[in-house]
Amino acid sequence: MTDPTSTTTHPDDDAARRLDRAHVFHSWSAQGGLDPLVLAGGSGVHVWDHAGRRYLDFSSQLVNTNVGHQHPRVVAAIQEQAGRLATVAPSTAALVRGEAAERVLAHAPAGFSKVFFTNGGADANENAIRMARLHTGRDKVVSHYRSYHGNTGAAVVATGDWRRVPNEYARGHVHVFGPYAYRSEFWSTSPEQEAERALHHLERVVQSEGPASVAAILLETIPGTAGVLVPPPGYLRGVREIADRYGILLILDEVMAGFGRTGHWLALDAHDVVPDLVTFAKGVNSGYVPAGGVMMSETVARTFDVRVFPGGLTYSGHPLAMAAIVATLDAMADEGVVENAAAVGRDVLGPGLAALAARNPLVGDVRGLGVFWAVELVRDRATREPVDAATMGRIKAGALARGLLPFTADNRVHVVPPCVVTPAEAATGLEILGDVLDAVAADVL
Amino acid sequence: MTDPTSTTTHPDDDAARRLDRAHVFHSWSAQGGLDPLVLAGGSGVHVWDHAGRRYLDFSSQLVNTNVGHQHPRVVAAIQEQAGRLATVAPSTAALVRGEAAERVLAHAPAGFSKVFFTNGGADANENAIRMARLHTGRDKVVSHYRSYHGNTGAAVVATGDWRRVPNEYARGHVHVFGPYAYRSEFWSTSPEQEAERALHHLERVVQSEGPASVAAILLETIPGTAGVLVPPPGYLRGVREIADRYGILLILDEVMAGFGRTGHWLALDAHDVVPDLVTFAKGVNSGYVPAGGVMMSETVARTFDVRVFPGGLTYSGHPLAMAAIVATLDAMADEGVVENAAAVGRDVLGPGLAALAARNPLVGDVRGLGVFWAVELVRDRATREPVDAATMGRIKAGALARGLLPFTADNRVHVVPPCVVTPAEAATGLEILGDVLDAVAADVL
Ligand SMILES: Cc1ncc(COP(=O)(O)O)c(C=O)c1O
Ligand SMILES: Cc1ncc(COP(=O)(O)O)c(C=O)c1O
Repeated sequence: MTDPTSTTTHPDDDAARRLDRAHVFHSWSAQGGLDPLVLAGGSGVHVWDHAGRRYLDFSSQLVNTNVGHQHPRVVAAIQEQAGRLATVAPSTAALVRGEAAERVLAHAPAGFSKVFFTNGGADANENAIRMARLHTGRDKVVSHYRSYHGNTGAAVVATGDWRRVPNEYARGHVHVFGPYAYRSEFWSTSPEQEAERALHHLERVVQSEGPASVAAILLETIPGTAGVLVPPPGYLRGVREIADRYGILLILDEVMAGFGRTGHWLALDAHDVVPDLVTFAKGVNSGYVPAGGVMMSETVARTFDVRVFPGGLTYSGHPLAMAAIVATLDAMADEGVVENAAAVGRDVLGPGLAALAARNPLVGDVRGLGVFWAVELVRDRATREPVDAATMGRIKAGALARGLLPFTADNRVHVVPPCVVTPAEAATGLEILGDVLDAVAADVL
Repeated sequence: MTDPTSTTTHPDDDAARRLDRAHVFHSWSAQGGLDPLVLAGGSGVHVWDHAGRRYLDFSSQLVNTNVGHQHPRVVAAIQEQAGRLATVAPSTAALVRGEAAERVLAHAPAGFSKVFFTNGGADANENAIRMARLHTGRDKVVSHYRSYHGNTGAAVVATGDWRRVPNEYARGHVHVFGPYAYRSEFWSTSPEQEAERALHHLERVVQSEGPASVAAILLETIPGTAGVLVPPPGYLRGVREIADRYGILLILDEVMAGFGRTGHWLALDAHDVVPDLVTFAKGVNSGYVPAGGVMMSETVARTFDVRVFPGGLTYSGHPLAMAAIVATLDAMADEGVVENAAAVGRDVLGPGLAALAARNPLVGDVRGLGVFWAVELVRDRATREPVDAATMGRIKAGALARGLLPFTADNRVHVVPPCVVTPAEAATGLEILGDVLDAVAADVL
């Protein structure tokens, strides 16, 4: 492994950086101060730049490369489909699209029959919201403040976090607080109480909004970007009951949590809940080709048997994306990738992060499952005051210098390696992260 | 060429049809009565099914395969990039992304400096609208009733056609009529008068909405799906003047018209207009990999040097999409694809469609340039009453039976082959279309 702190350079790294700064406009950023990491290649849980600096990818990029980087079977499937037919209109029937839909539905809840394919997570949620509104004839969508659902018109206003605020040009969105035991909005003292009170709050908001105006409750099964907020037992079942009580559809957003991340095919598999619509993207083909979609229950699908569905996009069911879905899901099944994610979470990441929390005073909370964990960092365990941005910057730089590519958000490090990470690789990454956090703790506390 | 009317079948065609009807939910349709055409392969201007039935593609699928099907250079670029690094987070610097941005900007208006990449046309428009609102601090977006801008929250409400109506959940959208000499909304009798009156109408709406509330005027340079409504001379320059008069940004949507379709790199190149933002998708890489984006003038880009841009997506600047852009634009430049589109329009499609209009009473109007034409069909040339859906269905079926894959919309056939179509192929397609229209005319008139 090339030392990531080495100053070796390569003309292509320089060119990548120069062209990027000259011409590429970046997501969610002020463009002025950016100094992006150059990446040129990858394999499994590793990525590297042109000079050969290697990083252990504990981010899965944007929590999408569940099958790891450059899985040979997925790469081959894309290459073969590219050689056969790279693009075709969505109005046609393409064999690979039907096969991808069949593969996706194999992991859907019982009673699901159709898939509407999109290009990513945002437009998956847009279309699920559209389906729910047309199916119910109602307007409003209730979602969590602590959530991210994408950057387009309705998806970004369904989003609860700060990204919604400068983008509030869509109507019909209502937000509630969800369960978050570590920072309860409900003065609760146990997970059971947190679930109960969050459900009470949700139902009171639905009642107060006028239940007959609510089309859907849209939730990430496990809010991801917001901090891997695994819902307490009973919460999702309770949400389903509220939805049923008032004729509201339940949309579960599995864009980040789905397809192996939690050690289950879908995160909802670990909960006693059947939604009406499931949105997905990322893990379904590890992001090798842009793709997302909506899994539809037969009940919702049937609404559009005679009624025109007023949504669509040029690349719905794009052949390259579909080929990548088929290969990814087949490889994950054949290679036990989901089981691996569960085992690594149970045997390595769970115990390892618990040990880190026990010894390092910066760690306020650790939560997660599979390869989907958040480590919440605080200046003070009593007040739970978050560490500041400078501290997070030091942690990120420290990890990169040690060859670990971390995922950070607010005052948290999310531990989200590919689902194919081996126990040994997971242990290596944890060790680096632990060392970095110990050094920073010694310094700032 | 296998006879497309042959009843030869192939197990994969049957499987494609069966899986499609069982599991794939289609865009813009009632799902009940669909009987989609199976497509399995293609090359240049041809596509075929598994049984080997071939079609001359006069649709470019959804008007996106400008470089033709399976261009070897684009296919190879995708395959190579897939083998190197299929996916990478948008926050990194990837050489191929910088190269793609540089290639795109080579065709942008003077003073353009950055590209924000998206997955398709809808999210390109979403982000352009976001940029305009934040840059101006204003809310409203004015667009044409005769327009299509995509299916997501803001894009679908910016859209003027029927698809907007069941989707009106975004605020801040205002619509105006644009110039359409054949069906003028302004009682005009010449293209000059149509332009003048459309501009007067636009300015009166802007004044009446309160110019200080208008962030952007968003127009397709040439409204495409609405019927290839080539704006009369002076219209776009006049729109620019109105925008300048009131401090409004001008966004030109080149998703369908851009990258060769009109025989120019951008459709705006043939007009005396410099917009502030240009949105693109489709032709930029012929849709081989889902991609779109916003070309940004330096003025708008600079707004976000210190201010955070509150938009983004997981697959912004996706490596496969970027590799396809570089290869597509290089191939188009090296092979004179844009010049070919111009020549085929001037020498074959223009004169051929004029001759068809002269002899066939169904043809009410013909308009276009390059490989971007609309043939408007009417029951009666005096009243201009559109032909009905049954007639359009017969035309479509007749063309398919003769091995021509047509693009139909409302009462129109759009003649939109790939930009690589040869004069001979264009003539062949026109001949089939002419025969079909003559037969239908003889029957229904
Ligand atoms: C839960 C969730 N939903 C939706 C999205 C949006 O997906 P995309 O970026 O592909 O539009 C994301 C992206 O991070 C997500 O995590
Ligand atoms: C002019 C125009 N803008 C935007 C779009 C939307 O693009 P997409 O389907 O990739 O979202 C289209 C699609 O046909 C279009 O023609």
